[in-house]
Amino acid sequence: MVIRMTERQSGLDRFYSVIPAGGIGSRLWPLSRADAPKFLHDLTGSGHTLLRDTWDRLAPLSGPGRIMVVTGRAHRAAVEAQLPELEDLNVVLESEGKDSSAAIGLAAAILLEREPNVIIGSFAADHVIGNTRRFKRAVIEAVAAADAGYIATLGISPTEPAIGFGYISCGEALTIDGAPSALSVVNFVEKPNLETARRYLSEGSYLWNAGMFIARADRLLDQMAESEPELVAGLRELAAAWDTPQRGAVVDRVWPGLPKIAIDYTVAEPAAAAGKLAVIPGDFDWDDVGDFASIAKLHSAGRNSDLAILGEGARVLADSSTGVVVSQSKRLISLIGVTNIVVVDTDDALLVTTTDNAQRVKAVVDALKLSGRNDVL
Amino acid sequence: MVIRMTERQSGLDRFYSVIPAGGIGSRLWPLSRADAPKFLHDLTGSGHTLLRDTWDRLAPLSGPGRIMVVTGRAHRAAVEAQLPELEDLNVVLESEGKDSSAAIGLAAAILLEREPNVIIGSFAADHVIGNTRRFKRAVIEAVAAADAGYIATLGISPTEPAIGFGYISCGEALTIDGAPSALSVVNFVEKPNLETARRYLSEGSYLWNAGMFIARADRLLDQMAESEPELVAGLRELAAAWDTPQRGAVVDRVWPGLPKIAIDYTVAEPAAAAGKLAVIPGDFDWDDVGDFASIAKLHSAGRNSDLAILGEGARVLADSSTGVVVSQSKRLISLIGVTNIVVVDTDDALLVTTTDNAQRVKAVVDALKLSGRNDVL
Repeated sequence: MVIRMTERQSGLDRFYSVIPAGGIGSRLWPLSRADAPKFLHDLTGSGHTLLRDTWDRLAPLSGPGRIMVVTGRAHRAAVEAQLPELEDLNVVLESEGKDSSAAIGLAAAILLEREPNVIIGSFAADHVIGNTRRFKRAVIEAVAAADAGYIATLGISPTEPAIGFGYISCGEALTIDGAPSALSVVNFVEKPNLETARRYLSEGSYLWNAGMFIARADRLLDQMAESEPELVAGLRELAAAWDTPQRGAVVDRVWPGLPKIAIDYTVAEPAAAAGKLAVIPGDFDWDDVGDFASIAKLHSAGRNSDLAILGEGARVLADSSTGVVVSQSKRLISLIGVTNIVVVDTDDALLVTTTDNAQRVKAVVDALKLSGRNDVL
Repeated sequence: MVIRMTERQSGLDRFYSVIPAGGIGSRLWPLSRADAPKFLHDLTGSGHTLLRDTWDRLAPLSGPGRIMVVTGRAHRAAVEAQLPELEDLNVVLESEGKDSSAAIGLAAAILLEREPNVIIGSFAADHVIGNTRRFKRAVIEAVAAADAGYIATLGISPTEPAIGFGYISCGEALTIDGAPSALSVVNFVEKPNLETARRYLSEGSYLWNAGMFIARADRLLDQMAESEPELVAGLRELAAAWDTPQRGAVVDRVWPGLPKIAIDYTVAEPAAAAGKLAVIPGDFDWDDVGDFASIAKLHSAGRNSDLAILGEGARVLADSSTGVVVSQSKRLISLIGVTNIVVVDTDDALLVTTTDNAQRVKAVVDALKLSGRNDVL
């Protein structure tokens, strides 16, 4: 699919997509794990992995030759198998995870070395987006805002008082050519409790923070350098060596010492505080598929009477049961009278919980780590 | 262990134990199944199968040389592996299951051919008994009642208003030498609803029907012949040929045509109606381990806060969860926030339900049969 250029879209010809494909998705254990992270699974029943779906959304915007993937060395083969169009120069491999500031910042720095005016957009490899056309319209506005000098983000119009997401408190409308719906950002707020989430929903000026950032690469790095100058210095050093024979030596020397910090703290929040952040409200369906409750919800389309079944060749016999079953083992799974149940059946580990307890799955993973049970992590 | 004969126990020298080892235990699927029926499992955590525990309870009463096992041809090897002391002449193999009248009746007829005055006691291979000493005292009284001409049964003093068992309505005390606690039986009643079960418990004259029958073999067959003359004629014909070279030919000709009917209808109920039945109240713990709720109860000793874990080498990580886990697959099983849960994890099938729904497991088995899924049955 190609976006028709009915009018000149400001900055889109300089746009580069960045997909940080990291993070295991601990709350989706034992489906997601070190050697099979969340982005390598089909959690929507689309027949494609989340990574592939992410690529397919971005390719019409930046072109397939302008999508960079930042991932761990261990996942290189799996990522390349999913994305045969991915060009070698667009693969950035991390020897160890350094969180999102380093991952996105390195991509920004490398692309900036190659193209001084590049605009980058960072989109997680493991989110689900329901209405691609609306997503694209929002990205095009965000690119225009980035071209105008803003650090732009997409905020999702909330459909329920979710407590699993952070929120963006929106301010007045901005006047940006090509970004008519852009708003200023008052601030970012952490995941609220239910009461607060309900208030956000009723007030109408809050959007979900989907963690998508679109900015000129130089502006993004400048913003990051204000709070993390050493990080950005390291990233620039890496970028300068990246397309040279010195890459390996510089990576070995610099990367291990970089601080681990989320981009929310180095870019999003300080940019908002400085009035440099613009948010484009997105009216598309979005979910970070953070836990099994969210998978159940995605598949049930809001109905409580449903049992979602994921897994190729799943064999499930269910009586009076609702929730979600993930089958990887090909075994027959029989459910009787269990509601809001979560059953995840893999070859070496089985999880049984309820959608209400879906957030607690991470604690199991932590307990397994502590007890040295890395064989199932 | 040997019962000390402090006084002459009437009839015990003529006593023969019979263990009908049939029945899959459908409500314990997928643990129990055609090739691994309930009696071949260790459901108590004793380290022994239920069949072996049954044998060990009976051997001190009748002697190991006087225990006959009636089982399906398919289970011969497994039964003999569990019971190396079992003598060849005490193995009765069924080519197809014909229910308890034929199974116990055939044992009675064979033993009657061999010993005209034999007293037999029939004890299911897959029940759990907690206090062996009290069990033995009750059997010794039942043998004395049988010696006096009664068809005797053991009734269990109920400890709760169970709805999963049939009940025996007891009448006045009988005067039987060697059986001081024997009572007459008013009638047998089917599994009651909860309200009725509560009334039975408060009235105090009801016992659980544990399906154990002790009688002279001739009296048992005579009683059976009153309602099922053709069945008993067939059994006598089989018995006459049993210890001769004609056994195979007669079995092939006679067995397939025998009617399938439970011994409750051919012996217990008509004998009660005729005043020929004596019940010995048993104050030992007993359970027929009919479903997973009963396994959970057995292991929790009545506490609701427990998670029972069965299975050699089971690896279970549980947080805020109660119920029962049966692990046969060696996989890691993680439970979070599930109460009264039943998880049965085998190599080819997984069951997830709750103890409240334990009785409904049979319906799943029926559905699998109907859909031709015999590979997991």
